[in-house]
Amino acid sequence: MRYWEDFAVGDTASFGRYEVTRDEVIDFARKYDPQPFHLSDDAAASTHFGRLAASGWHTTAMTMAMNVAYLQGDAGESAGLGAAGIDELRWLKPVYPGDTLRCETRIEETRASNSRPDMGSVRSRMTVLNQNDAPVMSFVAIGLYRRSPQS
Amino acid sequence: MRYWEDFAVGDTASFGRYEVTRDEVIDFARKYDPQPFHLSDDAAASTHFGRLAASGWHTTAMTMAMNVAYLQGDAGESAGLGAAGIDELRWLKPVYPGDTLRCETRIEETRASNSRPDMGSVRSRMTVLNQNDAPVMSFVAIGLYRRSPQS
Repeated sequence: MRYWEDFAVGDTASFGRYEVTRDEVIDFARKYDPQPFHLSDDAAASTHFGRLAASGWHTTAMTMAMNVAYLQGDAGESAGLGAAGIDELRWLKPVYPGDTLRCETRIEETRASNSRPDMGSVRSRMTVLNQNDAPVMSFVAIGLYRRSPQS
Repeated sequence: MRYWEDFAVGDTASFGRYEVTRDEVIDFARKYDPQPFHLSDDAAASTHFGRLAASGWHTTAMTMAMNVAYLQGDAGESAGLGAAGIDELRWLKPVYPGDTLRCETRIEETRASNSRPDMGSVRSRMTVLNQNDAPVMSFVAIGLYRRSPQS
């Protein structure tokens, strides 16, 4: 079990593989972000996207899918208490159908809680890259973890 | 047409109504955030959620749905160039099936672009509230807008 004490600034991880499909881009956009450039190539042609592009919130959702698969698999069990929030989320490049996304993370800060001696926070920089190794999105996730019972 | 010059610090808006359903919470979680407490009441009972709760990324998606409906309707046409990113996203309270969400926004800062004299940015605080007027999520959206041709 990985507790708050087991995370260190500078730790990195690389994981995930998500193939972005046209059907899924349109399905997400219809439900949650029905702006024309997320629904059809024709509507996107006259915008800076140039062709059908995924909603930025779809990219966050696909990233979460990769993250959960990693946390439930290779990352091993952790004493995670969920995420408090996200800082500095930036959409850097469009995500298109046919792209394949992956994740790189690096821990930027760990902090013991002042108010809750049994927990601490971990700030991790998430970078999502496409098949050309171009970053398409970046954010800092603030994760909460239980402290080790031995500490 | 609303250009960057037409947004002022302190401007507020209140809009949206989104009924959160059990089927949609589970459907989103299966695709993008299959942690047990987003999939079943039983699994959530032993967590701080207490019962089935929506993925935080589902809440951002539902918020975008309300925002797009507002922008395509009552807000009137604007010279928007999309969002650069999001700061200070915080999930404040669980969102449960049966909740009804709504949005309140307030402009916190407007800034002309140094590098692009034809555009500017607008920082807006988005607060999402449930049917009890309790804030469930908050973030600052960084929107980009064209400047007025008259300015």
